[in-house]
Amino acid sequence: MLENITVVFVEPKTAGNIGFMARAMKNFGLKKLILINPCKLSKEAYYHAVHAKDIIKNSKVYESLNKMLEKENINLLVGTSGVVAGDRNIERISVTPEYLAENIQKNTAILFGREDHGLYSHELRMCDLILTIPTSKEYPIMNVSHAAAVIFYELFKKMEDTCEIEKEIASYKEKELLKKEINEVVSKLDMPIHKKRNAIKVFKNIIGRSFLTKKEFHVLMGIFRSIKRNI
Amino acid sequence: MLENITVVFVEPKTAGNIGFMARAMKNFGLKKLILINPCKLSKEAYYHAVHAKDIIKNSKVYESLNKMLEKENINLLVGTSGVVAGDRNIERISVTPEYLAENIQKNTAILFGREDHGLYSHELRMCDLILTIPTSKEYPIMNVSHAAAVIFYELFKKMEDTCEIEKEIASYKEKELLKKEINEVVSKLDMPIHKKRNAIKVFKNIIGRSFLTKKEFHVLMGIFRSIKRNI
Repeated sequence: MLENITVVFVEPKTAGNIGFMARAMKNFGLKKLILINPCKLSKEAYYHAVHAKDIIKNSKVYESLNKMLEKENINLLVGTSGVVAGDRNIERISVTPEYLAENIQKNTAILFGREDHGLYSHELRMCDLILTIPTSKEYPIMNVSHAAAVIFYELFKKMEDTCEIEKEIASYKEKELLKKEINEVVSKLDMPIHKKRNAIKVFKNIIGRSFLTKKEFHVLMGIFRSIKRNI
Repeated sequence: MLENITVVFVEPKTAGNIGFMARAMKNFGLKKLILINPCKLSKEAYYHAVHAKDIIKNSKVYESLNKMLEKENINLLVGTSGVVAGDRNIERISVTPEYLAENIQKNTAILFGREDHGLYSHELRMCDLILTIPTSKEYPIMNVSHAAAVIFYELFKKMEDTCEIEKEIASYKEKELLKKEINEVVSKLDMPIHKKRNAIKVFKNIIGRSFLTKKEFHVLMGIFRSIKRNI
């Protein structure tokens, strides 16, 4: 799905930023880069791309946004803008990266603007959606490749939700066994009963909060069994 | 709340990246920057900071991470790493930016490593938590300020819709004391050395992940002291 999204960098002024953009794309599984009337693709671009040089090599160049729209098969055109407008400005109601992630379509193109002036108004008007990252009101204008990284991250996260990094988490029963073992250790200790009760509660709390893996469960079982034998 | 978070950039090699870091911080309302043994703060830093020059001007410099931990009041030390480890590797179970955002504490410090080598293993081992951004497996290593922007974005987003109830959290120093106490208990046990090492790591992990309150810290100290006496 992410491979289906096209990143369009409109009139980038420095080759380094093309490199940063390519790297951020590859970090989140995006592949298709289009450059509109870019600066010269000097070695700076490849330097900052690090392991994403292939994305620059495979990028396409168009002289204008209109030419690009004629040739490419785009369903949803998304513009990005750091300037948040209230709902009074009908033209510039913007959505969040989360919203885009939830509503992403096949053949979506995301436009990023010039480093200094972003996308012009007439370019934003061409878009189906305007995307704005929630930021501090004090300083809402982000570096273009930072903004790109945040948006790609949000898209990637949504896609990933279906295939989480699987950690083998200890089961409810295993955690019950562990708490039982800890309770036995605590009961053997020479201390007032209310302190023992508190201790049992605290162990229960931290086991609950720390999302124990199975491996960690086994290690802790071993240690408390050993403590029991050694008391 | 975000103003309370400290960003620690460990041995940055290029001034430009310090500027990018400062800008990303200001975009999301963070203010406190600490530099550990940084490169020279040349004009490149201020150039790339754009409207976040104040953050660089107000940054503090320490010669080492240990010196910083002595002087600063840190409760939760979070390391960042692009290398994801599975749950078999006890040392490197990592959490997502979302998890951190949901569990952020007063006086949290987030460490970012060198542009080339990131944080070293011994630095990651000092941390309560390791934070890893979900990325493409093909190219998981992000540019440091891109990673920072993604993490700050996630924290900002969460702060926007919550205004946390403040809990009195155990300090870094208190957690160190607790780990020392636990290590002493474990060292007294009759079990193979590699199992002892694993046990110490697991305790470290769950203490890091469970956001101990001061009250819980005292209860656990009491219980491990008692175990020590009773072994």
